[in-house]
Amino acid sequence: MRSITANYRTMNTMKKYFNYWFYVILAAMAAILFSPGQADAQDHRMIRLAKITVDPAQLEQYNAALKEQMTTAVKVEPGVLTYYAVADKANPAHITILEIYADTAAYKAHILTPHFKKYKATVQNMVKSLELVDVNLIGAAKKPDM
Amino acid sequence: MRSITANYRTMNTMKKYFNYWFYVILAAMAAILFSPGQADAQDHRMIRLAKITVDPAQLEQYNAALKEQMTTAVKVEPGVLTYYAVADKANPAHITILEIYADTAAYKAHILTPHFKKYKATVQNMVKSLELVDVNLIGAAKKPDM
Repeated sequence: MRSITANYRTMNTMKKYFNYWFYVILAAMAAILFSPGQADAQDHRMIRLAKITVDPAQLEQYNAALKEQMTTAVKVEPGVLTYYAVADKANPAHITILEIYADTAAYKAHILTPHFKKYKATVQNMVKSLELVDVNLIGAAKKPDM
Repeated sequence: MRSITANYRTMNTMKKYFNYWFYVILAAMAAILFSPGQADAQDHRMIRLAKITVDPAQLEQYNAALKEQMTTAVKVEPGVLTYYAVADKANPAHITILEIYADTAAYKAHILTPHFKKYKATVQNMVKSLELVDVNLIGAAKKPDM
């Protein structure tokens, strides 16, 4: 009888441990699946290169409109994260913009904002060509204050 | 006599003020010319787009080497400020890197570092084409935590 009781006790303890770890693992899996964590957020980012050729005669006005659009969007839209706009030194009318949005929903909301619509209307006769290239981030590295 | 003395005093005061303002303006001009301030530092930045086509069969190894180079350079070199490396979604072997250095001297120092030379040696048979485009910054906007 003693050994049966001992076995029963051992089984009961094992069962308790099983229950404990079952819930711990379930909670951990749920945390990974549903967390809005850094890694998860980065996976959904929408990143794009916009390659734009501008009418050289209107370049100054174009750049001013672009800067206003970028600054306003980053300031007022939670999902607009980063813009870098650069112009080829050899041909300043050839512009490349690196755009980072939190996700595609943030981008879809962005193109409906008044400031984006204003930009589009302002530059419609300044832009000679526009190529949009969806990209994935391989990696980024920058100084803390950049 | 009184008016001559008064004039003399006035002239003396004016001379003192002239001396005072002369040195104030001289100091301000020197400060503007020789300061390592934000605006001045930005004007000297060297910014570049590197457009790279990689052998698709060696893409994973290339990306690993690139990430190691970027991370090390930003960590150990004061003049290497920012890298963003992205790959076209439609063609991941087509890579664009936005590179920002404090100035051309920082870039020249960078390409002599052991980590850059190691990267170059590692990827020499992986890179099918390389185009380096010097650019000027039109503008950048980003969230404070980006």
